[in-house]
Amino acid sequence: MTSASSASSTIAASALGRLSLNQKTTNAWTLPEAVEGCVRAGIPAIGVWREPLHEFGLAKARALLDDAGLRVSSLCRGGFLTATDAAARRAALDDNRAAIDEAAALGTDTLVMVVGGLPEGSRDLIGARARVAEAIAELAPFAGDRGVRLALEPMHPIFAADRGVLSTLGQALDLAEQFPSDQVAVVIDTFHVWWDPEVEAQIARAAGRIAAFQVCDWITPLPADTLLSRGMMGDGHIDFARLRRVVQDAGYVGDVEVEIFNADVWAADPDQVLRQMKHRYLECVWDGEMQVSP
Amino acid sequence: MTSASSASSTIAASALGRLSLNQKTTNAWTLPEAVEGCVRAGIPAIGVWREPLHEFGLAKARALLDDAGLRVSSLCRGGFLTATDAAARRAALDDNRAAIDEAAALGTDTLVMVVGGLPEGSRDLIGARARVAEAIAELAPFAGDRGVRLALEPMHPIFAADRGVLSTLGQALDLAEQFPSDQVAVVIDTFHVWWDPEVEAQIARAAGRIAAFQVCDWITPLPADTLLSRGMMGDGHIDFARLRRVVQDAGYVGDVEVEIFNADVWAADPDQVLRQMKHRYLECVWDGEMQVSP
Repeated sequence: MTSASSASSTIAASALGRLSLNQKTTNAWTLPEAVEGCVRAGIPAIGVWREPLHEFGLAKARALLDDAGLRVSSLCRGGFLTATDAAARRAALDDNRAAIDEAAALGTDTLVMVVGGLPEGSRDLIGARARVAEAIAELAPFAGDRGVRLALEPMHPIFAADRGVLSTLGQALDLAEQFPSDQVAVVIDTFHVWWDPEVEAQIARAAGRIAAFQVCDWITPLPADTLLSRGMMGDGHIDFARLRRVVQDAGYVGDVEVEIFNADVWAADPDQVLRQMKHRYLECVWDGEMQVSP
Repeated sequence: MTSASSASSTIAASALGRLSLNQKTTNAWTLPEAVEGCVRAGIPAIGVWREPLHEFGLAKARALLDDAGLRVSSLCRGGFLTATDAAARRAALDDNRAAIDEAAALGTDTLVMVVGGLPEGSRDLIGARARVAEAIAELAPFAGDRGVRLALEPMHPIFAADRGVLSTLGQALDLAEQFPSDQVAVVIDTFHVWWDPEVEAQIARAAGRIAAFQVCDWITPLPADTLLSRGMMGDGHIDFARLRRVVQDAGYVGDVEVEIFNADVWAADPDQVLRQMKHRYLECVWDGEMQVSP
């Protein structure tokens, strides 16, 4: 390696010190493939999903991540707490307790919570939101006791019916603030909050409760499958520098997770996706004024 | 006609006293076809769109509507006020002044305003919102002088990038309240606002400034073209009775416009669409406690 390329990789490593690959961005990879991909790409952290984690095995995964020297920025995901019938509610609470234990075992303090949409056939949005609040109250001390924070993810209103009835950061904070900040926090995902006229005020209000900062872009025309409608940073309409600055001003110095659900990104070579993701992170999100590592 | 069927059509006529067909719901019809369709169906009001109005001619349209005894619940639409370059801004303001004059000539006091999205290539949402506010300030007295209210339509955040940077009713009211209520008001469209955790408080706050109440449903899976993603009332997730009650409590006694952009609805026989629309209105929206006519 020449001294010039060595200098340039030193700079890159430092600038990438807070970058995390959310596993969904490289959906075709198994967990070990994603870990190896991060190591090859010099990405120091990963957001892990439960399904591939279960496939690979929890203890093995912990050893693999430790050996690779990767931080786990979050475990995705708990939630789905809106069911009305008692058996389904009990099952959901049990599953969330299992997810909390998995997060603790993986060494991350962040369990991302997608709270769930309206139950089949229901139009009672207020009731669904109330059930989420009840379930969080039940899970919060259990999480805090294990060093895990329930990281409530306000979701874009496009998902209010079928994914997440928490629709704004303000609403998520109204709920989170009923609990100690080491039990319940929030996720700020640019895709979900970028449009909100109150986003700056609410991010400032979230100081001390920001468990995760996730980035991806809002692209138009929106892809036909709304679940796969997220774009690579720079491909859409979001001003990442602005949101990153507000998150930073709120004191957040944790990982910046790139989480992209997109059929084209999923069909591409994952190593190439990681290269582009690093490039776009440096171009759109990173700034020399950022603290270089968590 | 038997006396039984006569009694039943009397009841229906009274229950339909505030129902309005927004012309977009029967997109295949010309203006005269839509007017005749409303008359045949016993629908007493219509929301008119500018393009078919221009096609048919303003003076002729006014005569046609008067002869048919139809109220014009709104003219759709003004807006698109986010351009950055001076010529485009001037053109937009001129076009909005023309729309205000057309509304006055048609005898409606409501010009629905879709304010516009981000200009091509721009990520400056704050700037776009500021330009909307400036343009409204320029147009408001002109509208008020002609007996027309600029009815700001907060749009679902799904459209923040490409249609309307006013994303919540609260944000629309923050702007509207800077002007007299006979100059600037708001549109409440169930599709755009149903998900908002603050919707009840903001509708209450809108008392005296509600220029139009539009209904259609949020359906899932969302159709591939987001512009055509609206459903017939009852086909989706919106609790119309709840929102109608809050709008009523805010003192609104105007027309209830059914506005559905949907490829399947557009492909159906328009007379059949009107029949279904009346049925669903009576089933989902209407309540005996509503004032029967504006």
